[in-house]
Amino acid sequence: MREKVNLAEKVRVLQGSYAPGIVGYLNDYKLAVVKVEGEFVWHTHDDTDDFFLVLSGRMTIQLRDRNVELEAGEMFVVPRGVEHCPRADEEAHVLLIEPKGTVNTGDAGGKLTAPEVEI
Amino acid sequence: MREKVNLAEKVRVLQGSYAPGIVGYLNDYKLAVVKVEGEFVWHTHDDTDDFFLVLSGRMTIQLRDRNVELEAGEMFVVPRGVEHCPRADEEAHVLLIEPKGTVNTGDAGGKLTAPEVEI
Repeated sequence: MREKVNLAEKVRVLQGSYAPGIVGYLNDYKLAVVKVEGEFVWHTHDDTDDFFLVLSGRMTIQLRDRNVELEAGEMFVVPRGVEHCPRADEEAHVLLIEPKGTVNTGDAGGKLTAPEVEI
Repeated sequence: MREKVNLAEKVRVLQGSYAPGIVGYLNDYKLAVVKVEGEFVWHTHDDTDDFFLVLSGRMTIQLRDRNVELEAGEMFVVPRGVEHCPRADEEAHVLLIEPKGTVNTGDAGGKLTAPEVEI
């Protein structure tokens, strides 16, 4: 039987920005925490929506036509197929939910592509 | 394009306990906030896990063999097929994630069964 997860405690285990740590599963979805600081990479997920919930701090989800500014307690779902680029001026902590196997950098790839790691 | 959601603001729209309000979707999953106070009903979801994240306050997810005590920032996924009964001594606010069409009372039914309502 799986245990409860304290998200702040899990964030403390993370190393570096934009390297998500999986803290649980919901059916075939992975539940991950991530530290975000600086700019990520523009990318698209053609096969899935992309869930963000800010746990602490502030972040921006840049879309091509506007910016979505999020603070703690605010959630945004990037629709599938919509190009986006997360950014944070200062470290923020975020809960991510995506289907297992979803690559964090989507179609962009590159050096910020992170493996699926349980923490 | 969908907009961001401030979860605390959405909670203020809710009427009564254990009546979830849908605030968004992630693919074929519904994202809902709910106020919990008092005891819900023992029930099982045979076809899906059941995601709880406490946003404020405290709650207990009673399982047949133990209680899972959750406070703000803590998450628990009830595995599919595991009987459970949420309870809160004082009002708490919770984010729920389940596949669309999942009935809040699972196999139990009864008067606490709530319709799927967007808020």
